[in-house]
Amino acid sequence: MRILILNGPNLNLLGQREPEIYSNETLEDIHRQLSSLFPSLQFDFFQSNSEGALLDKLQSDKYDGAVINPGALTHYSYALYDCIRALPFPVIEVHISNTASREEFRRRSVIAPACKGSIIGLGGKGYQLAVRALIEK
Amino acid sequence: MRILILNGPNLNLLGQREPEIYSNETLEDIHRQLSSLFPSLQFDFFQSNSEGALLDKLQSDKYDGAVINPGALTHYSYALYDCIRALPFPVIEVHISNTASREEFRRRSVIAPACKGSIIGLGGKGYQLAVRALIEK
Amino acid sequence: MRILILNGPNLNLLGQREPEIYSNETLEDIHRQLSSLFPSLQFDFFQSNSEGALLDKLQSDKYDGAVINPGALTHYSYALYDCIRALPFPVIEVHISNTASREEFRRRSVIAPACKGSIIGLGGKGYQLAVRALIEK
Amino acid sequence: MRILILNGPNLNLLGQREPEIYSNETLEDIHRQLSSLFPSLQFDFFQSNSEGALLDKLQSDKYDGAVINPGALTHYSYALYDCIRALPFPVIEVHISNTASREEFRRRSVIAPACKGSIIGLGGKGYQLAVRALIEK
Amino acid sequence: MRILILNGPNLNLLGQREPEIYSNETLEDIHRQLSSLFPSLQFDFFQSNSEGALLDKLQSDKYDGAVINPGALTHYSYALYDCIRALPFPVIEVHISNTASREEFRRRSVIAPACKGSIIGLGGKGYQLAVRALIEK
Amino acid sequence: MRILILNGPNLNLLGQREPEIYSNETLEDIHRQLSSLFPSLQFDFFQSNSEGALLDKLQSDKYDGAVINPGALTHYSYALYDCIRALPFPVIEVHISNTASREEFRRRSVIAPACKGSIIGLGGKGYQLAVRALIEK
Amino acid sequence: MRILILNGPNLNLLGQREPEIYSNETLEDIHRQLSSLFPSLQFDFFQSNSEGALLDKLQSDKYDGAVINPGALTHYSYALYDCIRALPFPVIEVHISNTASREEFRRRSVIAPACKGSIIGLGGKGYQLAVRALIEK
Amino acid sequence: MRILILNGPNLNLLGQREPEIYSNETLEDIHRQLSSLFPSLQFDFFQSNSEGALLDKLQSDKYDGAVINPGALTHYSYALYDCIRALPFPVIEVHISNTASREEFRRRSVIAPACKGSIIGLGGKGYQLAVRALIEK
Amino acid sequence: MRILILNGPNLNLLGQREPEIYSNETLEDIHRQLSSLFPSLQFDFFQSNSEGALLDKLQSDKYDGAVINPGALTHYSYALYDCIRALPFPVIEVHISNTASREEFRRRSVIAPACKGSIIGLGGKGYQLAVRALIEK
Amino acid sequence: MRILILNGPNLNLLGQREPEIYSNETLEDIHRQLSSLFPSLQFDFFQSNSEGALLDKLQSDKYDGAVINPGALTHYSYALYDCIRALPFPVIEVHISNTASREEFRRRSVIAPACKGSIIGLGGKGYQLAVRALIEK
Amino acid sequence: MRILILNGPNLNLLGQREPEIYSNETLEDIHRQLSSLFPSLQFDFFQSNSEGALLDKLQSDKYDGAVINPGALTHYSYALYDCIRALPFPVIEVHISNTASREEFRRRSVIAPACKGSIIGLGGKGYQLAVRALIEK
Amino acid sequence: MRILILNGPNLNLLGQREPEIYSNETLEDIHRQLSSLFPSLQFDFFQSNSEGALLDKLQSDKYDGAVINPGALTHYSYALYDCIRALPFPVIEVHISNTASREEFRRRSVIAPACKGSIIGLGGKGYQLAVRALIEK
Repeated sequence: MRILILNGPNLNLLGQREPEIYSNETLEDIHRQLSSLFPSLQFDFFQSNSEGALLDKLQSDKYDGAVINPGALTHYSYALYDCIRALPFPVIEVHISNTASREEFRRRSVIAPACKGSIIGLGGKGYQLAVRALIEK
Repeated sequence: MRILILNGPNLNLLGQREPEIYSNETLEDIHRQLSSLFPSLQFDFFQSNSEGALLDKLQSDKYDGAVINPGALTHYSYALYDCIRALPFPVIEVHISNTASREEFRRRSVIAPACKGSIIGLGGKGYQLAVRALIEK
Repeated sequence: MRILILNGPNLNLLGQREPEIYSNETLEDIHRQLSSLFPSLQFDFFQSNSEGALLDKLQSDKYDGAVINPGALTHYSYALYDCIRALPFPVIEVHISNTASREEFRRRSVIAPACKGSIIGLGGKGYQLAVRALIEK
Repeated sequence: MRILILNGPNLNLLGQREPEIYSNETLEDIHRQLSSLFPSLQFDFFQSNSEGALLDKLQSDKYDGAVINPGALTHYSYALYDCIRALPFPVIEVHISNTASREEFRRRSVIAPACKGSIIGLGGKGYQLAVRALIEK
Repeated sequence: MRILILNGPNLNLLGQREPEIYSNETLEDIHRQLSSLFPSLQFDFFQSNSEGALLDKLQSDKYDGAVINPGALTHYSYALYDCIRALPFPVIEVHISNTASREEFRRRSVIAPACKGSIIGLGGKGYQLAVRALIEK
Repeated sequence: MRILILNGPNLNLLGQREPEIYSNETLEDIHRQLSSLFPSLQFDFFQSNSEGALLDKLQSDKYDGAVINPGALTHYSYALYDCIRALPFPVIEVHISNTASREEFRRRSVIAPACKGSIIGLGGKGYQLAVRALIEK
Repeated sequence: MRILILNGPNLNLLGQREPEIYSNETLEDIHRQLSSLFPSLQFDFFQSNSEGALLDKLQSDKYDGAVINPGALTHYSYALYDCIRALPFPVIEVHISNTASREEFRRRSVIAPACKGSIIGLGGKGYQLAVRALIEK
Repeated sequence: MRILILNGPNLNLLGQREPEIYSNETLEDIHRQLSSLFPSLQFDFFQSNSEGALLDKLQSDKYDGAVINPGALTHYSYALYDCIRALPFPVIEVHISNTASREEFRRRSVIAPACKGSIIGLGGKGYQLAVRALIEK
Repeated sequence: MRILILNGPNLNLLGQREPEIYSNETLEDIHRQLSSLFPSLQFDFFQSNSEGALLDKLQSDKYDGAVINPGALTHYSYALYDCIRALPFPVIEVHISNTASREEFRRRSVIAPACKGSIIGLGGKGYQLAVRALIEK
Repeated sequence: MRILILNGPNLNLLGQREPEIYSNETLEDIHRQLSSLFPSLQFDFFQSNSEGALLDKLQSDKYDGAVINPGALTHYSYALYDCIRALPFPVIEVHISNTASREEFRRRSVIAPACKGSIIGLGGKGYQLAVRALIEK
Repeated sequence: MRILILNGPNLNLLGQREPEIYSNETLEDIHRQLSSLFPSLQFDFFQSNSEGALLDKLQSDKYDGAVINPGALTHYSYALYDCIRALPFPVIEVHISNTASREEFRRRSVIAPACKGSIIGLGGKGYQLAVRALIEK
Repeated sequence: MRILILNGPNLNLLGQREPEIYSNETLEDIHRQLSSLFPSLQFDFFQSNSEGALLDKLQSDKYDGAVINPGALTHYSYALYDCIRALPFPVIEVHISNTASREEFRRRSVIAPACKGSIIGLGGKGYQLAVRALIEK
């Protein structure tokens, strides 16, 4: 079973960026935990600051599912929304922090209606829960 | 460890109500699965159609955490928001269906800013993931 | 044929409350007229100031139809909307006064999309017309 | 007793137009039923696609009441609103379909504040109920 | 010098319609006063309830100026706006009542940006002032 | 002279809940102070988390006046608004914290237009001032 | 094959009206070009300043398709929207000028959702392209 | 008969300021024309850039009427609105340019609902028409 | 203890201005009552129609507290808001009438977030209650 | 004559992606048809999921015209708007589906005001019509 | 070369007022630095809490340029906007704090469109940069 | 001291693009002037049309400060906002033209709250002032 773990702009800064909001965990930590927690799964980890590269990656292969944290693109990338609608596999949206208790603009996700579901505010563990949701279906 | 599983208006109808949206799973099914999946936890299951009763329950005891699906109250009950802010334990909001792909009014949760996080659109399994998030912290 | 006549908050005050808007007719007058006008029907009359009690009542039995005047809940109770959508029998919304010519907030009914139809501004007689619409189908 | 039954744009298409929304009943069917149901009333039936002709008709005579379904003009004809306010007899607004469960623009009637009341979503029968409301006062 | 005096929907009812707002003066009174006050001018008086007829009239001839009270069309007839922009002569908008102190929808005139100016709330005398403004230029 | 002191959802938590906003004073402290400050008045103290119970209480008796702090219901309970409008005695709205300097949603009180007046941000002392306003009229 | 070419308010002024926006081409020029470009088609050319006349025309016959430029009615005539939805043949909306770069109100077409498509800003040639789209399907 | 002619901020710049909008006429020209046109009236001419001074002036005396051009204060001075409502004599609002065809913010006058009427876009002559409206009543 | 009592635009008209809203009490009455009710306090009474003068006054001295009724400036004077935030002593906002039941624009106070609290709708007595709140702290 | 045919995010998926909306035609089919229909034109076909690459391409050369379908970027890419405004050659916007009858966010094109015109809802044929509009000028 | 340095309401409080936002620098410090940094320029320093006085000052003389920090008037004084548009010399708007990261109302400057440019968030140094921009043109 | 000068989409077109708005100065001119004006600073000049590339560059190194003109991304790139918040060095936003006097969408900068400050409308010289602000701190 092949799962894409896709992270958008600025998520490569995890661990350094506003740790009081995002904790000290790095993206590598999150990836390592997924690999060790789900040893039988094949993960494809990808992070990019470019919307185009994220779209290319999502279209590149027939995964069995994807966990996607598009960072700030969540709030305006209708291109991601269109892409997710067009994919033949389920996508779950993850946000590390509780977007509802931060700036107003973070309260609306334009990709959420195209996703199967969303996991928000549960830290790096949100990725694990999302993978679990994908594989236990 | 004591966990409150709180369900709001109309969730007692799960299984009969719009099964194409909410599946055939009943609230009892969801409760039973939680009990068998987490045998070492003490669950307090509560459902009510009354905002007042839900508030009374949340204030009634010092749980270690709560999973709450307030049904339609999600979208207007600032009283629930106030209550959750006042609680000494973490609360995770769960929605069975993907609220972002339904009516416009379902897109804003007035309680989300007071919760630790949200799990949306992952069916009855959302409750299990929320419990997991509470206990694995 | 069993018909539920459900009235929400403050409708117990009919006859005393702002008679220039609501006339002097009491809720008991309205109920009595229905019983005498439709002697072959079984009416279940219910009024409550509590949203939860209204929801419980609507879910309590398999009526052949319901006439509901939710009072001010009309304008914010998405829980009623959800409940009516889930019911297996038709519901008609009634308002005694013409809500369109009063305060701005009364112009939108959040339950109307879940109802079969609405009768507004025709006084206590609106209940009779609604019953007629339910039974003559 | 003389009653005007006034229908606005596109209501002449009833029976052909989107029958899943408006049923197969034609405007002639609706008129015939009114005549047979209320044999003692004098009906003046009028339909036009022109706002001006509708206004001319409403101003043309001193009816004892009018039932008006202005079609889409409901949502923007402040001229109709002004006219109804100026009439010396009561007007009841009727809509065949449940305008609240269709496109957003159908949720606001600009004429409703000038009418005595509204009957919405009860099909062709709505006209009968409206006439009943006018005559039984 | 030829001046068009154009009145829109429901202004034929002046004198009968809500006299506390519009006074007892009829449209004929207003016309008569204009003729006697400006004996050297050629007036073309026209009233219609139909937007189309008003447009036809405005396009029908090369007047030296027009005074127009479009009634409720003021608030939604972008067709009138377009027409006035296309005319080779100046147009002054007149309203008998003070539209700013009535319903909210009366606060915006969609035709005002196409007119030379507006005279509002000064009763039937507003027409006289408008004519004066046209001829004294 | 009989005065109702009515408190809504979560006000039973006063003293524990966010003391930096609401201070350490409990609702009992506030009640005790009122009783000792106005020994000649008959107070009826009532708190509930249920909108329905609050409405029932307000309708239950002919008080000489009421002081009401509806908690978060302030911001959406049009049912309370309707109830207060229907009461034959004056009602003063009290808020302990300054609602204008907190979340945006707290800036609009839907009940204020039905009340005689409002006292906001003056702590538990606001109740005393409100009683004074009721009795010194 | 019979095609209706329908033009709304003020389009009879083409050629005189704001030529810097609409060019010097008259409606007759546009019609003549269509006839000579598509000699095998039967065109029915119709222009009116009256919404009602436009609706009557659209309902009058079973065309194979229609090209419609409703002028300013584009922005408020929900009656046209309803009519187009009810027609059994495809309709293409044409605008001569680029409505997106003019006044704000021109940015929303209320009829567009009922049309097959729209051709905007391409001058009189837009009509030719629309006919081509209708016949080459 | 005593008439106050009151001008607000920046109107002292008339003649120099954006003459393509306001013409070359100075405020003194306008005043002089009024005096010569209405020799029997007593005019009190007053201009100030200060909202407070304008309010003081309006409250200073019992005029028989006032013509007021509050400049940009038109769009935000609720203090002027309150003041005009409190005055025992009629006030007519004048604007030299057509405020409806300029910046969006100029489209709403917050003082208009308190005035008897408004004359807009008719240049310096607007003052003369306003005086005429005041005296010919 | 020195208390500033500051009143804004048009409050000098109290007693004459719309007595059905503001009663017949004059500002002098209110001041006299304060002086006699709190003989040990030093009051500085100040009223001005000028925002600038009000700001100068507030900055002029180190009072122990201020009661401020800014009249219509309440709704737009962000300069007052800024000033109050910068003051080293507490300020309580008072409104004589119930601003929530009047025009829409009166529902938002731009100064409220900078004040300690607000007393609204309790007539001239509101000033007394505000002083009491300041001194009993 | 050199024409750029530019397609934005997800248009490479044409033929697979939601064929009930976009048909089975691939982008290659569309390109092939253009080449065969206009053999004398030089086409430069370009598709990218990256806004930056699209901008680079548009700036790369002096075409005689461009046909651009920016996919979802249509609704938020002000960078594209700026770029098109800066180009020395005309650009026509094409959308395959009728964006007006889909999600609300698709109703506003931020690039339309910078384009010469738009062709919407006419399928792959829209590209051909756009080319025709560019070359027949 | 003569430069006006104009400061609006509350800027006289600089140094005392919220130093964590505005630093400890006083307006005198800022003025002194300008004089010493630009010894060859003639500065006219002016601060007032009164909008009217600010307008009078701006109109009082023909400066070569002005640097203006209107304090909170920035957000509502359309009178300042009008005045700046009418001035024959360039004006640069300065704000000491970053208005974009504070209250929502501070995000829109109504005077900005009339100014040559804006310098925001760079502390007292912003005045120096503005002067530099004026003189180095 | 190392300073990053970052320019976003379409700024490579400076000098050619709408010179009446942006002048004839090229980006190279701006860069050259900075180098010659601040010979002791190390500048890193970077322009890209790609949001992703801009983010990569900002994250690539520990500069002592950055001057950023994100072009149209200013108005929607929350990814840039997030990135700037995460940077350990100060960023100043520069716009060449006065964005407040152009299209409505240019009035809001989504990155401004994350920047230290903004310099707007002062042409190419804005970059120099920004550098000065960074180094003179």
